Amino acid sequence: MEKNQIETSQSGITCIRGAFFDFLDDPWKYIEREHESARYIRDGLLVVEGGIIKDFGSFDKLSPKYPDQPVTHIKNRIILPGFIDGHIHFPQVRVLGAYGKQLLDWLQMWIFPEEIKYANRDYASEAAKRFFDDLLAGGTTTCQAFTTSSPVSTEVFFAEAERRGMRTIAGLTGIDRFAPPDYVITPDDFYSESKRLIETYHRKGRHLYAITPRFAVGCTDAMMEACAKLKKEFPDCWINTHISENPTEVRQAKQEFPDCTDYTAVHEKHGLLGPKFTAGHGVWLSNDEFRRFAKAGAGVCFCPLSNLFLGSGLFRIGRALDPDHRVRLSLGCDMGGGNAFSLIRVLEEAYKVGMCNNTMLDGSVNEREHDAAEAERNKLNPYRAFYLATLGGAQALYLDDVLGNFNVGKEADFVALDWNAGQLALDWHQSLVTTESAPATIDQAAMLLFGIMACGDDRNVDETWINGKRAYKKG
Amino acid sequence: MEKNQIETSQSGITCIRGAFFDFLDDPWKYIEREHESARYIRDGLLVVEGGIIKDFGSFDKLSPKYPDQPVTHIKNRIILPGFIDGHIHFPQVRVLGAYGKQLLDWLQMWIFPEEIKYANRDYASEAAKRFFDDLLAGGTTTCQAFTTSSPVSTEVFFAEAERRGMRTIAGLTGIDRFAPPDYVITPDDFYSESKRLIETYHRKGRHLYAITPRFAVGCTDAMMEACAKLKKEFPDCWINTHISENPTEVRQAKQEFPDCTDYTAVHEKHGLLGPKFTAGHGVWLSNDEFRRFAKAGAGVCFCPLSNLFLGSGLFRIGRALDPDHRVRLSLGCDMGGGNAFSLIRVLEEAYKVGMCNNTMLDGSVNEREHDAAEAERNKLNPYRAFYLATLGGAQALYLDDVLGNFNVGKEADFVALDWNAGQLALDWHQSLVTTESAPATIDQAAMLLFGIMACGDDRNVDETWINGKRAYKKG
Repeated sequence: MEKNQIETSQSGITCIRGAFFDFLDDPWKYIEREHESARYIRDGLLVVEGGIIKDFGSFDKLSPKYPDQPVTHIKNRIILPGFIDGHIHFPQVRVLGAYGKQLLDWLQMWIFPEEIKYANRDYASEAAKRFFDDLLAGGTTTCQAFTTSSPVSTEVFFAEAERRGMRTIAGLTGIDRFAPPDYVITPDDFYSESKRLIETYHRKGRHLYAITPRFAVGCTDAMMEACAKLKKEFPDCWINTHISENPTEVRQAKQEFPDCTDYTAVHEKHGLLGPKFTAGHGVWLSNDEFRRFAKAGAGVCFCPLSNLFLGSGLFRIGRALDPDHRVRLSLGCDMGGGNAFSLIRVLEEAYKVGMCNNTMLDGSVNEREHDAAEAERNKLNPYRAFYLATLGGAQALYLDDVLGNFNVGKEADFVALDWNAGQLALDWHQSLVTTESAPATIDQAAMLLFGIMACGDDRNVDETWINGKRAYKKG
Repeated sequence: MEKNQIETSQSGITCIRGAFFDFLDDPWKYIEREHESARYIRDGLLVVEGGIIKDFGSFDKLSPKYPDQPVTHIKNRIILPGFIDGHIHFPQVRVLGAYGKQLLDWLQMWIFPEEIKYANRDYASEAAKRFFDDLLAGGTTTCQAFTTSSPVSTEVFFAEAERRGMRTIAGLTGIDRFAPPDYVITPDDFYSESKRLIETYHRKGRHLYAITPRFAVGCTDAMMEACAKLKKEFPDCWINTHISENPTEVRQAKQEFPDCTDYTAVHEKHGLLGPKFTAGHGVWLSNDEFRRFAKAGAGVCFCPLSNLFLGSGLFRIGRALDPDHRVRLSLGCDMGGGNAFSLIRVLEEAYKVGMCNNTMLDGSVNEREHDAAEAERNKLNPYRAFYLATLGGAQALYLDDVLGNFNVGKEADFVALDWNAGQLALDWHQSLVTTESAPATIDQAAMLLFGIMACGDDRNVDETWINGKRAYKKG
């Protein structure tokens, strides 16, 4: 029995049939044979029970095991694991794409005045509904989010995530200087409120908690120490922050922490740099800082939409992914510094940043910066790109035990992509690859995915599923 | 009498009512008071006769002059002059957003094999329909286009433009080296075919002809001389080419023209640099070359979608717009090097390039590159941005006698923008500016336009009108 409606049998099992594409390993380990890192099942079956993947494989082989189960057949789509966004700001949903300022002025002019509103539960609740609607419309099923310095915003965020059944990471956002008086929070209040929120939310349902010093420029040593204390008491928690986004910010961080040799040293000094630590941006991280991130098992979240929109600069993808000192790398839209929610748009801009880096490293501008291997690592082919948006993001965020691909036992969040949607021109473009109802080979699938990231946007997200249930269908 | 359908009275007059926004001057001349360069009529009337603007002003004042005319009222939209694209490749419509190569390799791998197909009239005709559909869906009403080295593609291009009634500039594209044998054309054949095409098309209907040496690397001195000869015989024709797009290309141009001090000198040597000359890109033009462009009255077309997608680099907007040596600047999507047809997407990427330049010139990275005035000129506020897409483009292309704003006597091409369309998040964002059916002030209108360029795309183009007739309505 096949239907377009979702069918869940009385046994609580859901079966989804379609063309599935996911990753088993890091494609940067497979240069010029990236497809070996991926898995494509042209006619596959995903069996979900209680939100967990119970079985996964080819339809022909698996379907006899489930003879009485109804099957939801998703046709003419490529089904990928849900996108994972490592860096986004819940309280900026209304001011995305604000005009004309670099980071520090942009915060003062547009961001803090808006974020202050999120102490109001009604306003925050309306924003939360829109925020999660926008995420799902972009195919994002998990995010690591900043909230505000008011506990209300964190409470509202987790309440709405719970209503959607989504796995998210978030936490009260600490900042005790360089922000309006109504917005700052003292280290003591931050500590006690964070502790209360951790005890309320962390590991409850799908919630995960991140201890969140906003960024070192906005955090005194006392605030950083409050974070360190929380991490010692709750070592299972994540840590989420920003680093080295903008050159003026980097200079200011050095001024504020004269005892630290660089920006990364601020986090090292307080014992925060390590597993489950993610810093957004890292545009201006030095080679040495990248190596220390790699050694510590800490992650960087690359946010190209934002880095270009705020003029922060070009993230050095190929340097971060030096195989001898490989940094854990996730992708983030960084809405509202980023001007869209869509991870597909993030991939487009990431590709562009990589290509600009590629040119600067090919020796044509400056022979002394010539590095052919690093230049090559900057090229975001579709395997590398969609890996970062799925399994790579999960690995960087230490979520790959539960998310990132279709392995049995993982959580059933996924997205069905329509490779012909988007701008009018895309359809004819994709017909160069295939006009069949599903790509014949993994390379065909990858080429269609590249068409989506190069020329598409949120319109290519046709369905988004959470916990084995359809949570979004394009109107 | 008001209707949603287009009404043209028996007198042949069409009246359109709505909120109109256009430019009368260059906003870079009005720093921090850019609105003085623009004109906003909240409730306006545009009267068109025979495709030409017969009257324009406030509805209250003008409508009594046309008591018996039906009026088409376009509500909840901002109406702008049609977008002008200074640089696009007709025969790349199917291969936009192709993977992984910088300019010279990209041409060999993806572009020439596709462009060769356009010697086939059937293939070219199908492509032409799609090309113009895609343009109109993006709000572009005039473009300056490259075709191929086969006259067929130029003929098909103009035939389809004529069917749509669109004003376009195009011409046979000359290249006699560094391309496949099936693709090159000899200077003699290029000269005679160009001459024939000029006599057939130039100034016939709305067609304008551009003598088109593809780029100097692909053109011998003999080809450049053929172009010079054509320009002498047909001085009213335009000239369209590429310049200084990619650093490896710039090096190769210097090798191929050892007698020229730089890339611009190749065009000077052959007497081509002057009015009606446009070169796409100019990413790597020196300060001295910019000054010579300015002095000659020659134009540069800035193509940020392409410059980022091919990794060519960041165009120096603020340097090109030095008020003492101001280069005529248009915008181009440069599809297929550019990955979208939409001028709105071009504005988004242009804004990002400007912001990245702004940071590099603010002294935070390198005090020796600090230039506050140039940094400021890089900021694409909505006035500057939409000026470039309309009147600025017309001026750069020497089309402002007939296009670019709503002045009486100009041609009635325009676009109606829906500021709430686009990604799901845009609606709530724009509600910070207004929830009325039309912006109350010119600054409100500009803020909504910034929302469109920052967070929108082709979805914000609701209607596109050519010659006073609706040619596109969003489905």
